[in-house]
Amino acid sequence: MERTDEPDLAALVRQEDLRAVRERLLELDLPVLLDELERLDARARAVAYRMLPRAASVRVFELLAPALQSELLTQLRSQDVGLLVAELDPDDRASLLDELPTSVARELLTGLEPDERRMTLAVLGYPPESVGRRMTPEVLSLPLGITVADALVQVREGADAAETIYMLPVVDPGRVVVGVVSLRRLLVTDPETVVDAVMSAPITVTATLDQEVAARSVRDHGALAVPVVDAEDRLLGVLTVDDAMRILELEESEDVARSGGTVPTGRPYLSTSVWRLVRSRVAWLLILIVAAALTVNVLDYFEDTLARVVTLALFVPLLIGTGGNVGAQSATTVIRALALDEVRTRDVGRVLVREVAVGVLLGGALALLAFLPSAWLAGVDIAVVLAISLVAVCTLAAGAGGVIPIVARRLGVDPAVISAPFITTFVDATGLVVYFLVAGLVLGL
Amino acid sequence: MERTDEPDLAALVRQEDLRAVRERLLELDLPVLLDELERLDARARAVAYRMLPRAASVRVFELLAPALQSELLTQLRSQDVGLLVAELDPDDRASLLDELPTSVARELLTGLEPDERRMTLAVLGYPPESVGRRMTPEVLSLPLGITVADALVQVREGADAAETIYMLPVVDPGRVVVGVVSLRRLLVTDPETVVDAVMSAPITVTATLDQEVAARSVRDHGALAVPVVDAEDRLLGVLTVDDAMRILELEESEDVARSGGTVPTGRPYLSTSVWRLVRSRVAWLLILIVAAALTVNVLDYFEDTLARVVTLALFVPLLIGTGGNVGAQSATTVIRALALDEVRTRDVGRVLVREVAVGVLLGGALALLAFLPSAWLAGVDIAVVLAISLVAVCTLAAGAGGVIPIVARRLGVDPAVISAPFITTFVDATGLVVYFLVAGLVLGL
Repeated sequence: MERTDEPDLAALVRQEDLRAVRERLLELDLPVLLDELERLDARARAVAYRMLPRAASVRVFELLAPALQSELLTQLRSQDVGLLVAELDPDDRASLLDELPTSVARELLTGLEPDERRMTLAVLGYPPESVGRRMTPEVLSLPLGITVADALVQVREGADAAETIYMLPVVDPGRVVVGVVSLRRLLVTDPETVVDAVMSAPITVTATLDQEVAARSVRDHGALAVPVVDAEDRLLGVLTVDDAMRILELEESEDVARSGGTVPTGRPYLSTSVWRLVRSRVAWLLILIVAAALTVNVLDYFEDTLARVVTLALFVPLLIGTGGNVGAQSATTVIRALALDEVRTRDVGRVLVREVAVGVLLGGALALLAFLPSAWLAGVDIAVVLAISLVAVCTLAAGAGGVIPIVARRLGVDPAVISAPFITTFVDATGLVVYFLVAGLVLGL
Repeated sequence: MERTDEPDLAALVRQEDLRAVRERLLELDLPVLLDELERLDARARAVAYRMLPRAASVRVFELLAPALQSELLTQLRSQDVGLLVAELDPDDRASLLDELPTSVARELLTGLEPDERRMTLAVLGYPPESVGRRMTPEVLSLPLGITVADALVQVREGADAAETIYMLPVVDPGRVVVGVVSLRRLLVTDPETVVDAVMSAPITVTATLDQEVAARSVRDHGALAVPVVDAEDRLLGVLTVDDAMRILELEESEDVARSGGTVPTGRPYLSTSVWRLVRSRVAWLLILIVAAALTVNVLDYFEDTLARVVTLALFVPLLIGTGGNVGAQSATTVIRALALDEVRTRDVGRVLVREVAVGVLLGGALALLAFLPSAWLAGVDIAVVLAISLVAVCTLAAGAGGVIPIVARRLGVDPAVISAPFITTFVDATGLVVYFLVAGLVLGL
């Protein structure tokens, strides 16, 4: 998927060859165009963006990350800003308004048509990260008792204003969702049939539900859209599969960032400044280095032992590195299983038993591998210490790596935060204690 | 999302209360039912599965991981197996046949209707992991020149056999895809119009394209389906959004597994045996411990220095642990950016500059934090050594963590394999060399 033979958009912008910029932009497929814009710095992005034809510019703006949208707005004329914001879907508009300073957001809201303002305010009324924020209120529904023929007429008439016409909620007179019917079903059904007879039980999501849970529901049901309802099952809007896919991509990026011990930035890598990258990483590093101070204390405590048998120090990085790797494997596996609901918090016992068994077997295999070389280098005594410690540390690491994410979930903490770096730091300190205790016993220190 | 107040399916199966098992299964929503089945061991899963009503059983079978499907088949009567395999979609059937022993696969193929067999063999003819394997050949297309009215008739007649009717490829007499038209567009267009006038330029994927790339294309275009074509753009099948979402979920699981230093098992956690978990992790651990042997050699080389200044050993785990954490942050960030095409291999220079800058700033911050405590514990000399080493190691780690995944991609290796454990092991050995060199200079050893 490499594209290397194309002229570089950044270079064209730098040369101020606006005609060439425009031609280049027009050649590109939408996703590629987005990638290219994201790779530019903020000023160049604004220059290139202004070269887009009107229709494309709205579509591109919609698909940019809200952080980049807000940055871009500051570079456009206020008249353009108003038009652009007016054309966004209410859910996208709400995400953008969240990113903007309150005064700017209020001004933009005031500039909207009353109907659009009402829908935007409705979306903004739901908690951040809830599906209410991501649904579109522009939903086409069918009344209970309508015939298929009449339903098709309604669909034709309402198609322009609706986000989707392929999944149609059927509502009772109180707008309670009582069923859903697909357009496909309508098309193959005798026109005189009443929709009640062909609709199926609705899979709905409540507007306050977490957006990731709702998006997974769309995916797991293989649905093209699900109705979003209030606590009384009244229709509020619809979450479509393309929005669900975008939510899952976003959440995946956030989980990946957390698993590496960084705070998600919500921006593409090349449009994130070095300063922002540092801020996203420094907090966890400071916490981790304070935790790592434990290892200094452990070694300080055993300094006499270390001074007498300096050879012990040779294996410290190998031992704790291996423990960290085993812990990272367990944690990664269990965090993913939790995310997919393959494992639940009440499975903590089953997970512990399995991971401890895995840890013993892995530690045993590694100890066998390490025994002869370490005996040759440092003597049989030290090799025995290392072998026993490897089994103990791997068992401890696997058990901790498996259980800590589940405990985190039970405490209401996102398990993705309990990432490899956290398990590693935990294993470092405890592994050292194990090592020196084993050394003390075996070497009689 | 916890469900704790329900009777446990596993317990019901153990009690052989088949009536209760059946009732329990009938209560459950499809995705929950799948989760429950996946949590059982292989025998209990077969027992529960046989209690499902016929219609549900096909749907459930389709959605199980191919590894579990193949396991389940061995527990069913051969007559049931034949029926089940006959009802699968050609793409799902191909994935299953891949998991089965060749003799069983051949027997099942022979038992199919000629038409189904032909479609399955067509799918099996594409490389593993290609979109040809995941497309469905049951695609409804429209001939160029047809009127909207006639097109709608064709859609109604063909709806039953087609995977989707919402995205319709328009083909010329040689079956070359020349456009696509949505059902929505057909419905709102005057019936006398010719489809040529309302179709849009097709976004297609080639059958040999990697399934993940194709699935991302569906997501990035917000499409409900994309036509799959051969090298001459002739229509072969269609990749639908629900298949795309399943592919992305699977690929995400594989990437997560690799990033933790394990081999993907393709099975849910609780239905993976301990033995299989060990096998999925042991290979990387063995490689990593051999690499970690480098740290032993480095320390062995500097053993004299260490014997003279044992205090140096106190900070070894803290220093290399911090380096590992910084490297893991950079690697995770850049691997994700590569996956999303935010960064390409030719950006290696830009990434290096940014990550080195980030590393210097992070190392500086950590050195400032660590200076006073380490000076108090071990003296100003050692504190200076530690501070300089922290900056150097963090810079090295960030640079390596940023660049190594890009180099891997350029060499054709999946960057997700260059996971945190790999960067950590690399940083451990180089960090130690830096530390002792700095110590030698500052302490005049």
